[in-house]
Amino acid sequence: MTQKRCWTDSQRLLDRIQQLGSVGATPDGGVCRVALTDADRAGRDLVHRWMREIGLEIFVDRIGNIFGRYPAGNDAPAVMIGSHIDTVATGGKYDGNLGVLAGLELAQTLIERGIEMTRPVVVAVFTNEEGVRYSPDMMGSLVFAGGLPLDTALEAIGIDGTRLGTELERIGYRGTLPIGAIPIHSYVELHIEQGPVLEAEQTVIGAVDMVQGISWTECTIRGQSNHAGTTPMRLRRDAGWAACNIANFVHQLATDMGGSQVGTVGRIGLTPNLINVIARQSVFTVDLRNTDDSRLAEAEQRFEAYARRLCSSEGMELETKRLVRLPPVSFDDRMVNMVEKAAISLGHSVKRMPSGAGHDAQMLAARYPAGMVFIPSVGGISHNVREFSKPEHITAGLSVLEVVVSELLRGGIG
Amino acid sequence: MTQKRCWTDSQRLLDRIQQLGSVGATPDGGVCRVALTDADRAGRDLVHRWMREIGLEIFVDRIGNIFGRYPAGNDAPAVMIGSHIDTVATGGKYDGNLGVLAGLELAQTLIERGIEMTRPVVVAVFTNEEGVRYSPDMMGSLVFAGGLPLDTALEAIGIDGTRLGTELERIGYRGTLPIGAIPIHSYVELHIEQGPVLEAEQTVIGAVDMVQGISWTECTIRGQSNHAGTTPMRLRRDAGWAACNIANFVHQLATDMGGSQVGTVGRIGLTPNLINVIARQSVFTVDLRNTDDSRLAEAEQRFEAYARRLCSSEGMELETKRLVRLPPVSFDDRMVNMVEKAAISLGHSVKRMPSGAGHDAQMLAARYPAGMVFIPSVGGISHNVREFSKPEHITAGLSVLEVVVSELLRGGIG
Repeated sequence: MTQKRCWTDSQRLLDRIQQLGSVGATPDGGVCRVALTDADRAGRDLVHRWMREIGLEIFVDRIGNIFGRYPAGNDAPAVMIGSHIDTVATGGKYDGNLGVLAGLELAQTLIERGIEMTRPVVVAVFTNEEGVRYSPDMMGSLVFAGGLPLDTALEAIGIDGTRLGTELERIGYRGTLPIGAIPIHSYVELHIEQGPVLEAEQTVIGAVDMVQGISWTECTIRGQSNHAGTTPMRLRRDAGWAACNIANFVHQLATDMGGSQVGTVGRIGLTPNLINVIARQSVFTVDLRNTDDSRLAEAEQRFEAYARRLCSSEGMELETKRLVRLPPVSFDDRMVNMVEKAAISLGHSVKRMPSGAGHDAQMLAARYPAGMVFIPSVGGISHNVREFSKPEHITAGLSVLEVVVSELLRGGIG
Repeated sequence: MTQKRCWTDSQRLLDRIQQLGSVGATPDGGVCRVALTDADRAGRDLVHRWMREIGLEIFVDRIGNIFGRYPAGNDAPAVMIGSHIDTVATGGKYDGNLGVLAGLELAQTLIERGIEMTRPVVVAVFTNEEGVRYSPDMMGSLVFAGGLPLDTALEAIGIDGTRLGTELERIGYRGTLPIGAIPIHSYVELHIEQGPVLEAEQTVIGAVDMVQGISWTECTIRGQSNHAGTTPMRLRRDAGWAACNIANFVHQLATDMGGSQVGTVGRIGLTPNLINVIARQSVFTVDLRNTDDSRLAEAEQRFEAYARRLCSSEGMELETKRLVRLPPVSFDDRMVNMVEKAAISLGHSVKRMPSGAGHDAQMLAARYPAGMVFIPSVGGISHNVREFSKPEHITAGLSVLEVVVSELLRGGIG
């Protein structure tokens, strides 16, 4: 019934997801195509070939973003559909790939059906969204939107000591198109939720209204190493216990604050990390997120005040280092409404929701009307070889994308 | 003033501590003489040579324990003075070495002064007290006291895959003396406290009345890995948070129980241990100790009940593995009194106290009257290259040992 109103071929999209997923495939069913590696080049080559085969006009810009435009030569502001194809080291087949390949499917459908268009569509593949090799993440879209100078990005040094610009050159994707040279009307990205909310609420489509603000802090606590058997509790300066106490506080704080607030201590390292030795040092990270910037700042302030008070009263030294701080990003309300209405018109359950993860769309949102369509992730699992989204949900997401893009091409949001 | 009543030469002891400390010395001032390595052989060779030079009758038993007896050929039950000379990988110069070399100094003094003796003294060096290469720790004294069959000990496989019996043979210390063939009247061990209590209370001598019971548990918690940004608090099964929550409970439990109860989570490992991923698994250890076995059992029971309740209510799986469980050991009251009185008679401040660490003396205590003399550890630090005890405290400890041994030789405790 859904398909009656749509022309896209979701089987073709599913096939391409499997084909692209075989590039850089790992034995456990996952995908490893870290940005600007040989595997990333192979993935780019495949998508580039598909763009050429369906008849898109291809551009590669100076940070390696790939754009496929239809109709060729039409310089009117374009409706851009995109995402990324780089993965984390133990990634899956969906993540950014879905958004890129859904854009490709949509462009192919428009071409095949000879739809008349006043403005072009552009399928976009952004460089280094994951940021696991080069910081910051969402780099290609950030540079594209003017948030990071090209030269700074090209000079980024990877965790393997390589220079981004050199690797971009090496894999043949240092393009000539000046940054931002393609005029944009609006941007839409289809993505897996990467969380458990849609599945838990048995909802098929998420109309993403914002991206949560993110705060990452690394804490180092220095106490005193001592024998676990001979040191009375009152004479301890146990850096391991302090880390655990603070991690527990962070969990309680996020739970108490409610709303969209989340808090995670995902990484802990004790020194010397022995069963019968009180730790002299602990290093751990605190990941805080909220859709409301002032609430996020409040969470940061409360966690840091607690940590300082604890360490000070226990005679330990605390050092904190802010690794990342991104304010929340709101998507254009007209775009969110358009996604919501499209889902309803197709008979899908839909929910306005924030994104807990970062996406290229949030970078585009700084300059253009941008929106996102989420579909459920089975088990809420992502960045994992077990990442999976059901074919019927991919079909639903593709059809919502089609309706939204059709409206934008017809002049939606003016 | 102290020295007036004593004949031992504490400078000679201090010199030998430095000389033995130079065998297996590490660049940072520490010592690495892990049991049955080439460095351990070199340390044994030096002590063996000293024993021969001062005129002791030397035996090596089948587990590699070295005994030096004076007078030779006297088979009356002996007053044994000993400890161990193996170290942890990043050990110091004191630990077991002090007890062995103090015994040597005492034997040498008796010989030099031609003291008449109805029963002999035996200086003992026990094999593999630290247990860092082969389990269990305190192995040589445990075998000597009949707590572990010789054959089981010889078959122990090290963390490096070696067989203990083979390594003992290789370094030339697989002796021929049958286990327990030397008759024992009593056993005394001088040792650094390895804790901060004596220093904190400005007390010079510890009359050790018992060794705390020890309980080591390894906990494995299995939750669910998920994206730290997209997973609401209520939908998490965060194995890292559960570990921290339980570690925090253990600390609070030990503090609340008071008395000698201590509790330490010294080792924690999260999987995958990434800043923005909720941990799917945590593995951590819980070290609980108490001088009272029923209180120790209570602590174990309360910690495990809490951990089970938490994991069950949060939908996580908990697996616990008891790694070590040793009941408390009480030293013979007459021996404790003797140490206390000796200290008082020499004008030293003294405190009856439990040992938080395990010692060879606790194995001997199962069969013979045994006692221990503690001296302060600077900063409570041990098993560390910074391990240090002040010369004046070593002198004090040696003089107490001398008084106690003199009394035992005269027939003390009958």
